[in-house]
Amino acid sequence: MAAAKKRRDALLGNHQRCWLWGRHLVRQTLEANRWPIHEIHLADRLGEEELSRLQSLADRHHVPVIVETATRLTQLAKTKDHQGYLAKMGIFPYKAAEEVLQNPAKNPLYLILDAMQDAYNFGAVIRSAEVFGASAIVVGKHRQATVNSLVARSSVGAVNRVPIVQSADVATMIQLLQTQGILVYGASEKAVEPIFKHDLSGPIGLVIGNEGTGISSEVQAVCDGFVRIPLQGEIGSLNAAVAAGIVLYEATRQR
Amino acid sequence: MAAAKKRRDALLGNHQRCWLWGRHLVRQTLEANRWPIHEIHLADRLGEEELSRLQSLADRHHVPVIVETATRLTQLAKTKDHQGYLAKMGIFPYKAAEEVLQNPAKNPLYLILDAMQDAYNFGAVIRSAEVFGASAIVVGKHRQATVNSLVARSSVGAVNRVPIVQSADVATMIQLLQTQGILVYGASEKAVEPIFKHDLSGPIGLVIGNEGTGISSEVQAVCDGFVRIPLQGEIGSLNAAVAAGIVLYEATRQR
Repeated sequence: MAAAKKRRDALLGNHQRCWLWGRHLVRQTLEANRWPIHEIHLADRLGEEELSRLQSLADRHHVPVIVETATRLTQLAKTKDHQGYLAKMGIFPYKAAEEVLQNPAKNPLYLILDAMQDAYNFGAVIRSAEVFGASAIVVGKHRQATVNSLVARSSVGAVNRVPIVQSADVATMIQLLQTQGILVYGASEKAVEPIFKHDLSGPIGLVIGNEGTGISSEVQAVCDGFVRIPLQGEIGSLNAAVAAGIVLYEATRQR
Repeated sequence: MAAAKKRRDALLGNHQRCWLWGRHLVRQTLEANRWPIHEIHLADRLGEEELSRLQSLADRHHVPVIVETATRLTQLAKTKDHQGYLAKMGIFPYKAAEEVLQNPAKNPLYLILDAMQDAYNFGAVIRSAEVFGASAIVVGKHRQATVNSLVARSSVGAVNRVPIVQSADVATMIQLLQTQGILVYGASEKAVEPIFKHDLSGPIGLVIGNEGTGISSEVQAVCDGFVRIPLQGEIGSLNAAVAAGIVLYEATRQR
């Protein structure tokens, strides 16, 4: 059994293995049925009623359930914060660019991340995108945080709700969106006009750059324009997740 | 020497000891000369020129400098991210409520945190407050993250610039601010009107609640009103640091 598990883990590959934990996140991920779950581990202390509720839910989505001690869950998750709920995740289902391009949203609002590296920020951004009803988040592959356990937790489960498009190249994806009549604005402190002077009520994409280096020159080159969050003070820039929240808020306010 | 150091550490108290690291943060904290620094450790690999520059800066503020190996800095900081700069900090200089009440800002904009528990969020909020020119941040003592190394790093040094007022009781502090003609609004999804329908251009305080439980009933009871960030979706709430950034942005936009 242990040997079989080891082989399976090896096949699965370490880079793809990720545990989600906590009552809310595990239940919600199971219900959403989007991100594949390899198996669910539940603590025996949860009690008959809750265990059978989870078992039916898991059965519906063909996810194996293992009931064991809370101590064993702590060993697997390497944290005590599991509340008795632990899920071993498969590969996160990013959307392909084609899916979004072939089925454009009505009056779309895309949030485009140009290499957001911090997992906690990425999760908070996904949460904001869900809350402000963004059509999708577009990310690249290079220097971009991938959806993992920390991202899922920081998003409080919004990873299960907002489509996340992984594109080989962000600049190319922007150009494809532009062919569909979408105006793409980069958030940059160097922009002339403050964001609230731009009309963001139509089909748009808003680009947030890397935490350290901002929007890359390749992506800047394809943007239709730039919007500036009005800043004072000496620090000169916001946390990237806060900046993303503000541009989404401003677009929502105008809509 | 080691024994003397140990005694001093014991006197200083573990709960007050905190290391800041990184070139930008250590230099900026030293230059700001607000948060007392017990001693600075610099890696010998920084080179003559940089070391003597830092030594003069430290001399000006009477901070002892210890030059040693980068390996030793890594041991002290328990991280390799120090870039050769490490500072052992004293007690963070919160402002007393009286100082702010006796010297009210012109058209003040206060950000009031009702038990923000996450250090990373707290730091991002301090950064946003600096960037949007808030007059001060007000925090309580109960269930509130204190300014520590993680907060300082997440704030990218804004802890050195924004006054942070620590009050024994947030509700009482709000009542004192109100006697000075400041209108205090709580950010709450239960508010009737969206935030952009409120006039935030005068002297105001904006309250952000706890990450899990929102604004406490004691604080709600003393607020002049509530403002709502317009939300869609299922998650129903933003990351607290993102919410703080948005209310500060909206107040700035109106001003």
